[in-house]
Amino acid sequence: MAPTPDWVKQLKPSGPQGYELLAAERARSNIPVEKLQELLLTKEAIERKRRILDILKSEKVFDKSQNYFSGRMERFERALAREKKLQMLKRKHNWTQEEFRTASELIGEPGPYGLHESMFRITIDEQGTPEQREKFGKPAADYKIIGCYAQTELGHGSNVRGLETTATWNPEDKTFTIHSPHLTASKWWIGSLGRTANHACVVAQLMVDGKSYGPHPFIVQIRDTKTHEPLEGIHVGDMFGYNTMDNGFLLFNNVKVPHISMLARFSSVDPNTNKYVRRGSPSLVYGTLTWVRSTIVMQAGAVLARGVTIATRYCAIRRQFQDRDAPEWEKGENAVLNYTMVQIRLLPLLAATFALHFTGKGMMNLYQENQKRMNEKNAGRDGPSKRGAGPEETQSGSDILADLHATSCGLKALSSSTAAEGLEVCRRACGGHGYSSFSGIGPWYSDYLPTTTWEGDNYMLTQQVARYLLKSARSVLANELPINGAFADFVPPPLDTTRILSTFRSRSEIGCAFDILGSDCDIIAAFAWRSSFLTFEALKHRDEEKKPWNDLLVDFYRLSKAHSQYMVVKNFYEALLSPDTTSKIDADTIDVLWKLFRLYSLHTLEQEGSEFYASGACSKHQIMLARTNAVMKLLKEIRPHAVRLVDSWGFDDWLLDSSLGRYDGKVYEDMFYRASELNPLNRVTVDPYPESDVLFRKIEGEVKSKL
Amino acid sequence: MAPTPDWVKQLKPSGPQGYELLAAERARSNIPVEKLQELLLTKEAIERKRRILDILKSEKVFDKSQNYFSGRMERFERALAREKKLQMLKRKHNWTQEEFRTASELIGEPGPYGLHESMFRITIDEQGTPEQREKFGKPAADYKIIGCYAQTELGHGSNVRGLETTATWNPEDKTFTIHSPHLTASKWWIGSLGRTANHACVVAQLMVDGKSYGPHPFIVQIRDTKTHEPLEGIHVGDMFGYNTMDNGFLLFNNVKVPHISMLARFSSVDPNTNKYVRRGSPSLVYGTLTWVRSTIVMQAGAVLARGVTIATRYCAIRRQFQDRDAPEWEKGENAVLNYTMVQIRLLPLLAATFALHFTGKGMMNLYQENQKRMNEKNAGRDGPSKRGAGPEETQSGSDILADLHATSCGLKALSSSTAAEGLEVCRRACGGHGYSSFSGIGPWYSDYLPTTTWEGDNYMLTQQVARYLLKSARSVLANELPINGAFADFVPPPLDTTRILSTFRSRSEIGCAFDILGSDCDIIAAFAWRSSFLTFEALKHRDEEKKPWNDLLVDFYRLSKAHSQYMVVKNFYEALLSPDTTSKIDADTIDVLWKLFRLYSLHTLEQEGSEFYASGACSKHQIMLARTNAVMKLLKEIRPHAVRLVDSWGFDDWLLDSSLGRYDGKVYEDMFYRASELNPLNRVTVDPYPESDVLFRKIEGEVKSKL
Repeated sequence: MAPTPDWVKQLKPSGPQGYELLAAERARSNIPVEKLQELLLTKEAIERKRRILDILKSEKVFDKSQNYFSGRMERFERALAREKKLQMLKRKHNWTQEEFRTASELIGEPGPYGLHESMFRITIDEQGTPEQREKFGKPAADYKIIGCYAQTELGHGSNVRGLETTATWNPEDKTFTIHSPHLTASKWWIGSLGRTANHACVVAQLMVDGKSYGPHPFIVQIRDTKTHEPLEGIHVGDMFGYNTMDNGFLLFNNVKVPHISMLARFSSVDPNTNKYVRRGSPSLVYGTLTWVRSTIVMQAGAVLARGVTIATRYCAIRRQFQDRDAPEWEKGENAVLNYTMVQIRLLPLLAATFALHFTGKGMMNLYQENQKRMNEKNAGRDGPSKRGAGPEETQSGSDILADLHATSCGLKALSSSTAAEGLEVCRRACGGHGYSSFSGIGPWYSDYLPTTTWEGDNYMLTQQVARYLLKSARSVLANELPINGAFADFVPPPLDTTRILSTFRSRSEIGCAFDILGSDCDIIAAFAWRSSFLTFEALKHRDEEKKPWNDLLVDFYRLSKAHSQYMVVKNFYEALLSPDTTSKIDADTIDVLWKLFRLYSLHTLEQEGSEFYASGACSKHQIMLARTNAVMKLLKEIRPHAVRLVDSWGFDDWLLDSSLGRYDGKVYEDMFYRASELNPLNRVTVDPYPESDVLFRKIEGEVKSKL
Repeated sequence: MAPTPDWVKQLKPSGPQGYELLAAERARSNIPVEKLQELLLTKEAIERKRRILDILKSEKVFDKSQNYFSGRMERFERALAREKKLQMLKRKHNWTQEEFRTASELIGEPGPYGLHESMFRITIDEQGTPEQREKFGKPAADYKIIGCYAQTELGHGSNVRGLETTATWNPEDKTFTIHSPHLTASKWWIGSLGRTANHACVVAQLMVDGKSYGPHPFIVQIRDTKTHEPLEGIHVGDMFGYNTMDNGFLLFNNVKVPHISMLARFSSVDPNTNKYVRRGSPSLVYGTLTWVRSTIVMQAGAVLARGVTIATRYCAIRRQFQDRDAPEWEKGENAVLNYTMVQIRLLPLLAATFALHFTGKGMMNLYQENQKRMNEKNAGRDGPSKRGAGPEETQSGSDILADLHATSCGLKALSSSTAAEGLEVCRRACGGHGYSSFSGIGPWYSDYLPTTTWEGDNYMLTQQVARYLLKSARSVLANELPINGAFADFVPPPLDTTRILSTFRSRSEIGCAFDILGSDCDIIAAFAWRSSFLTFEALKHRDEEKKPWNDLLVDFYRLSKAHSQYMVVKNFYEALLSPDTTSKIDADTIDVLWKLFRLYSLHTLEQEGSEFYASGACSKHQIMLARTNAVMKLLKEIRPHAVRLVDSWGFDDWLLDSSLGRYDGKVYEDMFYRASELNPLNRVTVDPYPESDVLFRKIEGEVKSKL
């Protein structure tokens, strides 16, 4: 199109300018953004991010300006080029894993090397023998071997036991035959497999002497290391998952692989006896899963914070309809962030970003402490397997791990759902512009959404939480010492889950009376009470009324949600009390964080009102007051700090890649620039008339090469 | 990539095949699919659809196989070609508007001519003088003039009064000057404007002799009809909204247009006196808005039905985890549709598809009857303006219109939110495959989502509903004749809204006792009660406690939702009783529809439990029973009919364009085919190693032209 005329270049947005409005917002609050950011991310991480960001911005290949316009082919081509460059930079600056991860996060798209880094290499390290680490791990570190983790199949997701791919041991030549008996056995959704990987860690059913030993991991070469063409008997390709990554499919037609292919740290086939051998359980892997889920919880806070940052800044700038009471300098239309209907959607989500962050952090700390203690116990042994460790000590250690595992399931489900659904709320809070790719929310939302399904489907997971809570409840009932009806000399046991269940039981005669509007610790107690109530209700349905499991799935889902919400408010509460927080930040800011805690807790409580009421944790009147008084009052109190609070998450504009979320508030200028200057469609003139077959009258620039 | 090897071609999905499973599902129910489909869509519409579908399938340009892979440029190019072909077909077969609309719906993507057809031409017809219909309307019908409707601006959405574009009358040369004073005045999101239109209907603030007369429509030429280049003083382009449509931006630098440009049916500037003249209010336009919203309600049912069809069919085929009680022929994993956690997500949405359909239909009937009566009254006059019509008659007619307008606002908000959020639930119910474009849900979801914002933002609209309900409540209070405290001789007034409010008041002393679990009409009464209760609560806050409007927005939102849900259950209920339904379908099917009615109503009631409880419409125990007994029982009863019920919506596979939703159940075959055969990325082999700058080793077919 013709260059932008001067009269357009001179135009400015009407009324107060975006930068003035955000400046005014920032002047209304004295939240120490830098300090709060350090509390959330640590000084080191902030410094690291800035350093890496400068390097990335200086490389043309990382330019994001065409991301929102390009099609699949361009996106993938560009993503692969970026991954290659990233490896070169890693070597050049010899980055640590953390620095490398930071770089990947800043680029902000899943790339073709993704699963090689995150799953393939780690699996070899964790489940391979020293020999296998040498043979596969080393070249993988140098990207001579590029791998992926091939578990899920076209017909099989969450249920790993149901996988169809087989690995049959051949005693005669000491090999395994990898085979896909059906179309549904095709590996599917496997990141980095479609075009990039030349090896795969294939999870297959191990068959020895006609007997199945369940799924085991095998390292299998799938493409020629020179021509990169698929090897004989292998059908592999891209199944079109992410635009920037080659999620793939993979089928085997009786492919033979050597004995060393089976990762043998925990189990293997003895080539001499041809027998299956087990070397202790991979409890470390079971731990890894828990760890991964804890990271998802913490991540969920940051993921949501991205959307909340964009929506909050834009809603502080966007004006709609008059407000006669507005001060002179902002006469005209009113900032939409001043409308309670917008506040009730955004501010509880803002509170949730902090709640999820502190919860994930709390989980990870607990996990690491426990892992440390268990590893000390197992020092010298091959991995933290449990055999022979002192009973009581390891007992409690693995109890904590079991508790962590169960709660991490529920929290993964709650946090990723909160983040995904929250992002959609943020998008809609931006009105019409929310639907523009330039808002930066939509693309980010669709990339995040699968998190609600992988690492355990959010609905499936709730069954594990329920199963654990029922188990705990049974043991609580078993260990009760009734003293004429009451449980006078009750002593709280170590595990928190057991503690709240016992407390509930011990007070079941007396009942409770929590001052949810006046006392923060009573809020926690109310959430614990409701969770315990639902646990014993479910237990009654299951053990006394003998209801079938399937009929209870909905109850279990609600139970898991209730317990996870208890975990979140509890972790948030404890984080605000811990010296780790109070020592790093001033009293006024802590006070605002407490308001966020109350907003998150009371808003959740009001949403789930009927459960709190049914459990007797709160009165109908308290719940009504929570909504009409407490929550509305908290919205007013938090409103002035909204912009500084999102600033504290410290997202760089380059990362956000959003017109609406710009730190400087130049929302409309940026929207217009992307549309009129960056948009490739504006380089062509069409022939609009139905009669003619001509489509484009004039074709310029890069567009020519495309048509 | 190499052609698919024979051993792959021979592979089939394991276990029972998709077509067997769907056949078994269809054998479990005797819902007469054809008959039910005729009830929903009418025989004529079904026949028309089949006829048009055959024509479209035979035209290569409508082939959808690359839709999910192509980038923006390709999508738009293809979409324009399709629109041109569609016009040619329309002329060739001389299609009626209905036949043309059917064709567009089957193609299923917003196209570059979209707004020319739906808004530009209609606006000229409705708001233009005979002369203007001749000058602009005729060539528009022949696509010599291609137009768009340019109302919203970069800085202004819902609030039309806030538009910045000005049209200033010049007495000296009898012209208007169209001008964009600021960047935020740029027209924005305007469909068909970006590349296609050569004219625009521009909504601008009319200025006459220094005085503003508010927004008015002007027909302005923006591009040369030969070169299609923008005219002098006009900056126009694509702002990147939909992939297949050219949503655009538009700025004017003091562009002069002749007197005839202002659409003058209802108001104009007299060129002799230079005075603004008003010819009656465009109540017809106000009616059009109501009509458009009613269509959105009905449409929402079908939109959601698409997602429910896909998810239900796939969940009937997809197997996960063992079920020992399963019959021999389906041993192995259990169909996920058998899990209550899946049923509770999908079946209430299935019920919602029918609820929304019958509600929209009910609204449209009511609207048409009323419009007919009003038009008769106004026969001979220039449009249905009210002046001089018989008072009482027109009164009630416009009362009904006002009631319809208010309720249509709330229903538009409820139904489009239900559809949009429901589609996301459907996607997630499909597990991992839900995130594949091949599911057909994701792309459809993102195209529908903006409906929650346009034609009135779903949150903004709730204020209009509340305003109307408060007004009605005030008049009810004003007209009460208390007879010693009670309202013994109360006579129900004509308007339903007034009726339920009066009923509530008349019983406020006595209270209520609804048997929601035993009586269907009591369910309706309970919904009416809750809505009335919330209305008088809000009225108290506003009129007695004098709370500021902004503090009540959240209450208003809940009120609007409550009243709209009442409207939906009421319309669903009445539709099932009407001979129009009962005469067309057998008793067994009606019985299943009643179960759907109860599922929708009681599931909604349980979700909103606290409001029903607070209003006194139901006891806590009733609500608890609704969930644990009634709803769970209904899920079991409806489950066997699920597949036939979605079949009744009659979506053709070509329209759905979904692997998961295929009528024949060949889910995995289709997934695999699209991935390995249609996927362009599989035509290239990459160089995966970081060291080399080469990206593609080998480039074949159409891919070559792209790189």
